[in-house]
Amino acid sequence: MSGILYGIGVGPGDAELLTLKAVRLLHSCPVLAWPAPLEGEGLARTIAGPHIPAGKTEIAIRLSFRPERDDTDTAYDNAAEMISGHLAAGRDVAVLCEGDPLFFGSFIYLMTRLSNRFPVQVVPGIASPMAAAAMALHPLSTLEDAVAIIPATRAEAEIERLLAAAESAVIMKIGRHLPKVRRVLDRLNLTEKAMLVERATQAGQRLIPLADAAEAPYFSLILVHA
Amino acid sequence: MSGILYGIGVGPGDAELLTLKAVRLLHSCPVLAWPAPLEGEGLARTIAGPHIPAGKTEIAIRLSFRPERDDTDTAYDNAAEMISGHLAAGRDVAVLCEGDPLFFGSFIYLMTRLSNRFPVQVVPGIASPMAAAAMALHPLSTLEDAVAIIPATRAEAEIERLLAAAESAVIMKIGRHLPKVRRVLDRLNLTEKAMLVERATQAGQRLIPLADAAEAPYFSLILVHA
Repeated sequence: MSGILYGIGVGPGDAELLTLKAVRLLHSCPVLAWPAPLEGEGLARTIAGPHIPAGKTEIAIRLSFRPERDDTDTAYDNAAEMISGHLAAGRDVAVLCEGDPLFFGSFIYLMTRLSNRFPVQVVPGIASPMAAAAMALHPLSTLEDAVAIIPATRAEAEIERLLAAAESAVIMKIGRHLPKVRRVLDRLNLTEKAMLVERATQAGQRLIPLADAAEAPYFSLILVHA
Repeated sequence: MSGILYGIGVGPGDAELLTLKAVRLLHSCPVLAWPAPLEGEGLARTIAGPHIPAGKTEIAIRLSFRPERDDTDTAYDNAAEMISGHLAAGRDVAVLCEGDPLFFGSFIYLMTRLSNRFPVQVVPGIASPMAAAAMALHPLSTLEDAVAIIPATRAEAEIERLLAAAESAVIMKIGRHLPKVRRVLDRLNLTEKAMLVERATQAGQRLIPLADAAEAPYFSLILVHA
């Protein structure tokens, strides 16, 4: 009998924001895999660290986090190959995922490669919009509000169109896209209502009115309610 | 010194999807409050039940869940009054919230009434879109996808406009709005790509291709990816 591939959401940063189910599976699965930069352990492994017992087999999925998709595809192919060896031998494998596995998660690329051959289960995690809203005490939505979740990597005109359509918005992965996003929010007269949240629930978390923000890390997002 | 008002996300249904932080605070807070129908304990209390020790002071916030907003406002006014008595006396109060407190959560109405007088902290919870996606193994978003979260209570033309704007969508609170939502998805040629998820992670959860769905409970949502 083959093992189960688990995608485990480890939440936004605070180790206390793992679910009981995630902690149980981190203990029971003999093999853990986690995305990471070319060196170091990566954010998902760091978040889950306090809950990982000694003696696990660990697989680092080394990603360059650059736009060259061929490199990235090769990294996922290689990781899927290593993981499939464990699954075929009957060992459950837990893939650690920052936030939620299926919300902008790299787990999706492993699931795509392995779900036709092995059973897959996903444990949802606290996603960054909810973590940022909690930190800012910012209502994401009430009653009939629509919420648009928009990657800041999108073209300026598309961000504007998506923002204009909904009452509430979360603009993700700000980083170097801050000036572009600022221009759109200025045009829609929303800058005064927008908050920049950096690294919610992680060490060094920050909450800044967008009007005061000069730069932003990749792990930051903007909350805005029309 | 006054107590702290906590909004505690208890997740979508499975008691194992509470976070460690939620469980810790359910133990440490002497007073718990929870929204409920006019009789019975309500979903948030049911979900958190296995983690609630004996001996708590509990406040049921009785809501008719009908559109008469005056009744609802009165219920929140009364609950805020009872809660403020405990906070003023130095007792921490945990308000139990299905899913996440700030994502379509009734906690928002208590926060609005109390945050000018008392310290407030929010513990994010697993929201229903992530729970439904995990159950369906449905990627909510990859790379540059925008995600629209749309209450099914919106007007038909608005649902269509919001759906057309994004690559991925979650249509919430389907219930009696199923025929209207079906019409929109049919027009956009998306019915074949849409899944109805009922009560994700609760007893009686169901996953049905939208094309096969004849009716839907209130606690259901539709996942669709263009």
